Amino acid sequence: MTTDVFDQTRDQFLLPTGVVYLDGNSLGPLPKEARLRVAREVRTEWGDKLIRGWNESGWFDLPRTVGEKIARLIGAEPGTVVAGDSTSINLFKALNAALSLNAGRSVVLSDTGNFPTDLYVAEGALEAAARGHTLKIVPPGAVADAIDETVAVLMLTEVDYKTGRLHDMAALTEQAQAVGALTIWDLAHSAGALPVDLTEVNADFAVGCGYKYLNGGPGAPGFIYIRPDHAERITPILSGWLGHAAPFAFDLEYRPASGIDRMRVGTPPIISMSALDTALDVFNMVSMEAIRARSIALSERFIAEVEARCPDLSLASPRDPERRGSQASFRFENGYAAMRALIAKGVIGDFRAPDIMRFGFAPLYLSEDDIFTAAGVLEEVISDRLWDTPEFHKRMAVT
Amino acid sequence: MTTDVFDQTRDQFLLPTGVVYLDGNSLGPLPKEARLRVAREVRTEWGDKLIRGWNESGWFDLPRTVGEKIARLIGAEPGTVVAGDSTSINLFKALNAALSLNAGRSVVLSDTGNFPTDLYVAEGALEAAARGHTLKIVPPGAVADAIDETVAVLMLTEVDYKTGRLHDMAALTEQAQAVGALTIWDLAHSAGALPVDLTEVNADFAVGCGYKYLNGGPGAPGFIYIRPDHAERITPILSGWLGHAAPFAFDLEYRPASGIDRMRVGTPPIISMSALDTALDVFNMVSMEAIRARSIALSERFIAEVEARCPDLSLASPRDPERRGSQASFRFENGYAAMRALIAKGVIGDFRAPDIMRFGFAPLYLSEDDIFTAAGVLEEVISDRLWDTPEFHKRMAVT
Repeated sequence: MTTDVFDQTRDQFLLPTGVVYLDGNSLGPLPKEARLRVAREVRTEWGDKLIRGWNESGWFDLPRTVGEKIARLIGAEPGTVVAGDSTSINLFKALNAALSLNAGRSVVLSDTGNFPTDLYVAEGALEAAARGHTLKIVPPGAVADAIDETVAVLMLTEVDYKTGRLHDMAALTEQAQAVGALTIWDLAHSAGALPVDLTEVNADFAVGCGYKYLNGGPGAPGFIYIRPDHAERITPILSGWLGHAAPFAFDLEYRPASGIDRMRVGTPPIISMSALDTALDVFNMVSMEAIRARSIALSERFIAEVEARCPDLSLASPRDPERRGSQASFRFENGYAAMRALIAKGVIGDFRAPDIMRFGFAPLYLSEDDIFTAAGVLEEVISDRLWDTPEFHKRMAVT
Repeated sequence: MTTDVFDQTRDQFLLPTGVVYLDGNSLGPLPKEARLRVAREVRTEWGDKLIRGWNESGWFDLPRTVGEKIARLIGAEPGTVVAGDSTSINLFKALNAALSLNAGRSVVLSDTGNFPTDLYVAEGALEAAARGHTLKIVPPGAVADAIDETVAVLMLTEVDYKTGRLHDMAALTEQAQAVGALTIWDLAHSAGALPVDLTEVNADFAVGCGYKYLNGGPGAPGFIYIRPDHAERITPILSGWLGHAAPFAFDLEYRPASGIDRMRVGTPPIISMSALDTALDVFNMVSMEAIRARSIALSERFIAEVEARCPDLSLASPRDPERRGSQASFRFENGYAAMRALIAKGVIGDFRAPDIMRFGFAPLYLSEDDIFTAAGVLEEVISDRLWDTPEFHKRMAVT
């Protein structure tokens, strides 16, 4: 084998020169084919076919087409995932469905490591359920102890967006189900980043994001998974025409489509979704297991380099790579300013309050060289306090 | 003046040769600049700027940027419209907000001329409100008589999607408000098609669609309007992080952003939204009043031609153009087959069960010649029963 598969996957992306991109956990980069797909979708499918695109260009089926591709990455059976709407809205759908399936229970249990929007969405969903539910939020380490017979839904994000801490999805799902709770897993930082097997862990619901490790472009649609035996029992709260059993019959009453299709709502943003559809094809080149192994190798290397070069930074992520998602976070009191200086020098990570410098590792387009480059620039930024120089202040003032 | 303004607006679109497009009420055609905008958004803003696009490319503000452009077309004050999510989901937000503002009332009143998805969404929203609400659906002509003190919300689509019948938004809003009801207007077939003045009619809520007369592309995001004095009183049911007062503080509890911004939910589909943003600029070239006058002229001409040439078709739209949106519909028992044959000959309208042939008139890109061409081809299709010829069956079998 002359070329490593990850050299081949890297070649699928348009990466700006002079940049090391460690923020694919926020927004994945542009796959070359996605650029061509969007151009074709706009010029030919929209421009030439016009309304005929709904049938001739596969638009009507696109949410399921994309859903099937995502299903393969998260261990979901065919016909259990549909793409469309934002992650937040998919979570709202899942929560409402789960609460209606478990109507005798009153608690939604989540943790402080969840992405805040999930907690906000839960507030709205519980208000909508209007049956005196409680949103109980405990620290991540206390989740297991808080699972009891009052819990209707255990709603967690597998990978902590700040620290990369990984929940044990299999164990927590089993524990929750043993006391009669349902589970909703947010896979925002999991899908495309590490192997997920929803079928194996017997998850009830899952949602996730199209624009992070799946590289679908800014604001790419999210997705929702429902375990097949649940799907037919759900009356969607967001009951839109494309989730109707016969959308073009234009009946006056709602009848849910079969299975996962009922979670569709309105007309999906086809141009954005077409970018995601094509971006997912890169995953055909390599297994999630290989991606995970490489992600661990890259992050271990980065952590070792940073700890050797930058003693002022302290690891905020779990040290055990098996307990970490595909990112490494460091605490640093000047983290905000330091990250701005780092980005100005072409190494792009991001910052999360109060003091976390966050770096994501996406093996599809990151090389070992990138890791050494990034660690070297970070060392320079920290040791020379580059964010505190007149040159940097001047540069920031004009850009 | 050597060139008519509508020649200039027509030149803003990429229209396939040999096609007369009378289905812009379903999906508007591609503005030339939107094609360039999407290409730039993908290649430069996403590809080169990556995560920095959120600040440097205006992505974060885009839902409001687009909202302000739409506001000008529907008589809404600045700061009262935000784009994002589908029309269905925006309607869900509006309904939930209106029901909470009018908590003492139990009826949502709508009509059989409403687009069915609005009725489906209402079913879900009432279930969510869980306070024993009733969805009361009456024929369009019976709406005024059904407005009484039990009505919490009057929810109507201004222009009937099948027939183009136009509700009197001003009169019905005034009547509803006089008995203490709130109004939600679906502007799906109004925005960009005819003058709307939400401020003048004192509408409470409105929603609408980006991909019909606004030409934003397949599945372009919809929008929501809230009267400014209502907005601050609403706790959104879809409470996502981008509707939070401080999205990047990552607080664990939801605090709504001020005004219309609280109706944002998750991350919007930027690529699709950028097409809509640019498509809206075509409306800077001409007033909605001029568009309306031209739309009436075109539709009156078309109706006259069709009635003269095709006696088997009967007008399903109101004959008075002041009571009609920007479309003309005809009943014809072989309408489905005839429309297929018509489309095969390059005149694109659409069909709505059971027997309606529907034609939309978008003056931005339709000429008088188009109208005569379309009427002539329609005459040929009908008089020669072109859908019933061996040639047509053969053609349909292979395409």
